Amino acid sequence: MRIPKHIGVIPDGNRRWALKRGLSKEKGYDYGVDPGIELIRLCKKMGVEELTFYGFTMDNTKRTSEQTKAFTNACIQAANGAINEGSQFLVVGDTESPMFPEKLIPYTSRKTFGDGNIKVNLLVNYGWQWDLKGLKNLDNKNKSTNNKKNIMYLINSKEISRIDLIIRWGGRRRLSGFLPVQSVYSDFYVVDNYWPDFKPKHLNDAIDWYDKQDITLGG
Amino acid sequence: MRIPKHIGVIPDGNRRWALKRGLSKEKGYDYGVDPGIELIRLCKKMGVEELTFYGFTMDNTKRTSEQTKAFTNACIQAANGAINEGSQFLVVGDTESPMFPEKLIPYTSRKTFGDGNIKVNLLVNYGWQWDLKGLKNLDNKNKSTNNKKNIMYLINSKEISRIDLIIRWGGRRRLSGFLPVQSVYSDFYVVDNYWPDFKPKHLNDAIDWYDKQDITLGG
Repeated sequence: MRIPKHIGVIPDGNRRWALKRGLSKEKGYDYGVDPGIELIRLCKKMGVEELTFYGFTMDNTKRTSEQTKAFTNACIQAANGAINEGSQFLVVGDTESPMFPEKLIPYTSRKTFGDGNIKVNLLVNYGWQWDLKGLKNLDNKNKSTNNKKNIMYLINSKEISRIDLIIRWGGRRRLSGFLPVQSVYSDFYVVDNYWPDFKPKHLNDAIDWYDKQDITLGG
Repeated sequence: MRIPKHIGVIPDGNRRWALKRGLSKEKGYDYGVDPGIELIRLCKKMGVEELTFYGFTMDNTKRTSEQTKAFTNACIQAANGAINEGSQFLVVGDTESPMFPEKLIPYTSRKTFGDGNIKVNLLVNYGWQWDLKGLKNLDNKNKSTNNKKNIMYLINSKEISRIDLIIRWGGRRRLSGFLPVQSVYSDFYVVDNYWPDFKPKHLNDAIDWYDKQDITLGG
């Protein structure tokens, strides 16, 4: 079986999960931390080399302060989880805005923790516009250097590699601004369950599906 | 029912369709022209304002010359179809390469034909890298103008608006480099049938599905 080198994760549905349980929306984020840690563990066992989680976006920070606090706190907990599991951990996002949590500043350059057997990236205060603004440094004069690789090297998320498989929980079939450059060729798999209801079977089903995609790609 | 303003179309599966019928791969493209014209007709009736077809990419031009000729010819026929149906027609792609067909040069600025009741865009010799290279003109000094709209105005496909719904035929669940900026928030619907087997039902099912997506979006 072909294992994707790099999986992107859109852990959606936390608020809908909370509402379904009669909780207030922002309570859902707390229940999204442990599934992320479990997913890291499973991906390490499988030999996945890199895992990128969609934490929160600059657009998300326009929500109520209860929600903003709750998802920021969940990202800090998730970061601690990734570090404790052993990883090469990196946080990517706009650090120049006050919405970027200070506690995560030390992780905006990649650092190795424990066995370091997987790269884990967490998008925090990320925006696709912010990301693409790195392209203002494309060389206007030298046409030959403005190739595909050049774009990958100039975007603000340049430390994050091309993504093979994106898995989105919560049933929605859209990227919602998730890493537009790294996602251009990604296979996109949607799990209808909300993220806090994560089960290892979701990952296994996604990997099985991805394996079949590669077989039908020929020619 | 909410009708998407702008639908993106990835008409994939032409070659697999031909192989299934015992034809050589490149024969499939011929059979992809009429479905496109039918789709324009149906979208006009529904009140869709803009339709963008993924013609061919710069990467596609690395295929055999039989295939390159066949899909180039299919794009020229599709252009004639869009013009005959009545549309505001535009071709978008890299005109500086010899792979861009001369016959389509006159359509690289938008022109109105017949009733002009729908915008139809056709991507020809398109590349996502080529598209994003327009961002080299982002203003390095004036931070305040480097906002979301600014990016939309600088990419090389800037005449093409944000896409609400992308429909891909042929079963694959990936964007394959299709307009990364206009696709950031698009809902993505996949039809398993190959493109030459297009049926109006595919479009209707996609629109029904899209309508449900908007209802579940609240909050």
